[in-house]
Amino acid sequence: MSLILALDFGGTKLAAAVTQLGDSEWLRYERQLSPADSNATTDLEIMRSLIHTLLQGETPSAIGVSFGGPVDFTTGTVRLSHHVPGWENIPLKNLLEEEFGVAASVDNDANVAALGEHRFGAGQGYDNLFYITISTGVGGGWILSGQPWRGAAGMAGEIGHTVVNPAGPICLCGKRGCVERLASGPYMAQDAKESLLTEPHKFSSKILQSLVNNNLDLITGKTISDAAAQGDELAIDILQNASWALGTGIGNVANLMNPQLFILGGSVTKAGENWWQTVQKTARKTALSEIEFEIVPAALGDDAPLWGAVALAESSFNV
Amino acid sequence: MSLILALDFGGTKLAAAVTQLGDSEWLRYERQLSPADSNATTDLEIMRSLIHTLLQGETPSAIGVSFGGPVDFTTGTVRLSHHVPGWENIPLKNLLEEEFGVAASVDNDANVAALGEHRFGAGQGYDNLFYITISTGVGGGWILSGQPWRGAAGMAGEIGHTVVNPAGPICLCGKRGCVERLASGPYMAQDAKESLLTEPHKFSSKILQSLVNNNLDLITGKTISDAAAQGDELAIDILQNASWALGTGIGNVANLMNPQLFILGGSVTKAGENWWQTVQKTARKTALSEIEFEIVPAALGDDAPLWGAVALAESSFNV
Repeated sequence: MSLILALDFGGTKLAAAVTQLGDSEWLRYERQLSPADSNATTDLEIMRSLIHTLLQGETPSAIGVSFGGPVDFTTGTVRLSHHVPGWENIPLKNLLEEEFGVAASVDNDANVAALGEHRFGAGQGYDNLFYITISTGVGGGWILSGQPWRGAAGMAGEIGHTVVNPAGPICLCGKRGCVERLASGPYMAQDAKESLLTEPHKFSSKILQSLVNNNLDLITGKTISDAAAQGDELAIDILQNASWALGTGIGNVANLMNPQLFILGGSVTKAGENWWQTVQKTARKTALSEIEFEIVPAALGDDAPLWGAVALAESSFNV
Repeated sequence: MSLILALDFGGTKLAAAVTQLGDSEWLRYERQLSPADSNATTDLEIMRSLIHTLLQGETPSAIGVSFGGPVDFTTGTVRLSHHVPGWENIPLKNLLEEEFGVAASVDNDANVAALGEHRFGAGQGYDNLFYITISTGVGGGWILSGQPWRGAAGMAGEIGHTVVNPAGPICLCGKRGCVERLASGPYMAQDAKESLLTEPHKFSSKILQSLVNNNLDLITGKTISDAAAQGDELAIDILQNASWALGTGIGNVANLMNPQLFILGGSVTKAGENWWQTVQKTARKTALSEIEFEIVPAALGDDAPLWGAVALAESSFNV
């Protein structure tokens, strides 16, 4: 029996699972939140204990890893984590291979999730697709001709930092109006808060304010979605702007790469029917009429990186 | 001796050449302008006579074709020409194969030029590149992992219709502020003319007006470049806006696909040092700082499609 070990180092949680080679259900599954003051060492310790529980003394045949941050796929070295300190240049693939004595493959979460959806989720049967996660950030992963496309230096997929409105607000990346600045959860929350502070009468927003008990620091992407669903004008305006930005970005990608399918995952995709409709409509309008594509929700949810890690591990058998 | 026949059906000119397999110089070369009232039939007749002159009774081993318009590469069928009527659904590959009894490969000019620059020009030694032509239109062709990437349905590369300024002017494609609307030669000319008619005092523009003897219909991308080189304020402003749009589009592509190299060809790339500097600077600013790339001029000039057609024909030996 060939056991595949799948690991997911997220920014705020750690998850690990085992399955049998060729299977599509978990044999065992463990997950734990990262402590608030975690660093690379504590993350690795927690992951070791999850693995210990999972393996129950058995030895895996291969290990696949999803990491929440830039990774040099060729060497399996983590470049850094934007959430957890101490991950700079950690040779994660080597560490795991030395510890377990089997092949390990490590890639960033968007690439791995794309692979997971391609192999086990909404992308089955599609050879050319772009997976986009819209959550605390906006990132993407490519499958082209049935294989991950990572770019010349492993940096492909950054739809979040493509510019769609040069007159838009400034992002941490230094640019104005990139997709992440307009469409990610925390930036939507920031925009809602700023609008309430600087232009309190521009939109009616009693519903949103009551949802957070008038504590504007409690506004999140989720409260904006909830308020919009109940008719809050400000929340509706912000979601409209966010979904327009994402739809424009997707339409631009369709023109540039002509994939068959876009798969959208991440918490913001739960923002409701209006959000989805605007994304679809704007993407369709931005792409040339002769360019065809579909936009569908991710099927694997939070498990996409883990299933992608399985696919990554399995591919090491074919090298 | 293996003779390769390369054909280029441009919108306004027809060119054909022969070379020997593995060679990088033309054996013979013929070119002719399309008559103003040309159609698919007359284009094909002119091309036949060019081929007749070139082959001098010999039989080619393979034929490669660059076509100025969308092509279904798999079947080698032309979808249409935006410049010459009658090309709708012409099975060009089949026609040539029946007539000459050898394998023919047909693709659109941007894909073929990308292949030409990759194999014989500025892209030699680079496995991942994007070729962009900036001329009467703006289009692109991909080389990924050393191979042409045409998209799921052969429509990839349309950087010209990616949106970079949703508040910009309207393009024929129906959208506002796409790269082609801002950066192509005819649209720059249109903007100059409109500015002179509607806001004659916004910019000083005596140089441009004198270059066209005050006949605004004579303004072209070239006269704008010439006027800008001589200090014409309006021309400088238009070129600045155009090169900003192209640079933003290129930076977006760098974020999304992480190629090593961008190769720029087409008449507008002769617009001068300021144009190049703004393209370079804007692309660098738009791409994430950790994403590296180079932007270089095309090496093969107007011959890129013909040399690409040679590469296309040669690849039919490896199928």
